[in-house]
Amino acid sequence: MHIEELTRKASLDFLAGSRLGHLACANNGHPYITPCYFAYHDQYIYSFSTAGKKIEWLRTNPLACLQVDEIASFQEWTSVIVFGRYEELIKTDKSQEARELAFKLLQQHEFWWEPGYTRTVLHGAARPLDPVYYRLSIDEISGHRATPN
Amino acid sequence: MHIEELTRKASLDFLAGSRLGHLACANNGHPYITPCYFAYHDQYIYSFSTAGKKIEWLRTNPLACLQVDEIASFQEWTSVIVFGRYEELIKTDKSQEARELAFKLLQQHEFWWEPGYTRTVLHGAARPLDPVYYRLSIDEISGHRATPN
Repeated sequence: MHIEELTRKASLDFLAGSRLGHLACANNGHPYITPCYFAYHDQYIYSFSTAGKKIEWLRTNPLACLQVDEIASFQEWTSVIVFGRYEELIKTDKSQEARELAFKLLQQHEFWWEPGYTRTVLHGAARPLDPVYYRLSIDEISGHRATPN
Repeated sequence: MHIEELTRKASLDFLAGSRLGHLACANNGHPYITPCYFAYHDQYIYSFSTAGKKIEWLRTNPLACLQVDEIASFQEWTSVIVFGRYEELIKTDKSQEARELAFKLLQQHEFWWEPGYTRTVLHGAARPLDPVYYRLSIDEISGHRATPN
């Protein structure tokens, strides 16, 4: 197979056309991954989450890695990796604009989750309704595409 | 949606039926993710890689996280997360058996990559043929399955 490196623009375009990736964070040397729905806009990756281990860890250590791929086979895939920093969009005047943008961006897509989210049941109990909006800066981005010979 | 917790056995069964996941490692607080083909066998996850950043990082810090999912929609998915330790299967008498097992397990699957691998071209140059076999212990495993209401 051939592996080509994507340009920064091609990597960002791939992010812009994607909705689902995997996000990793780290705490005391332990890495942790979760799947992550997101929307890319103007050098930032916007997402939301319920409060939990991922958010706790990212509040402690904002260094994050988002990886997004399309894998057709071992020899045919595209993968983009972002190293960035977690920035929580809390309810303050300063971040109100970014928070509204996150809401607007995420709402545009079919995965908008509110109807399901409010009825989420885990361990037999309704999950607390505690959405956390955040964005990731893009400190480094790289992308590769593999094609079979 | 409803989210149910999987038993350890159901989580291991899901691993056993999966081939592709995402592996994270961490270095100085920086997490890093790559897609990862693997084969589960008897409490270990076997895989291989070319030498590179992931292997360098795992050699420095063996703490790893493997996450495997099937995502049909935001409300319908299964996700299993393993926290484990990287163990490189180097060519020594001690690890010869595990190395042969890894080779055998990975060879059974259609993603067996040798024909393509030997022809891999990156940055216009043939990639060095330096396969690294490794396995991850399963120190902690958890799984969840979401179903729509």
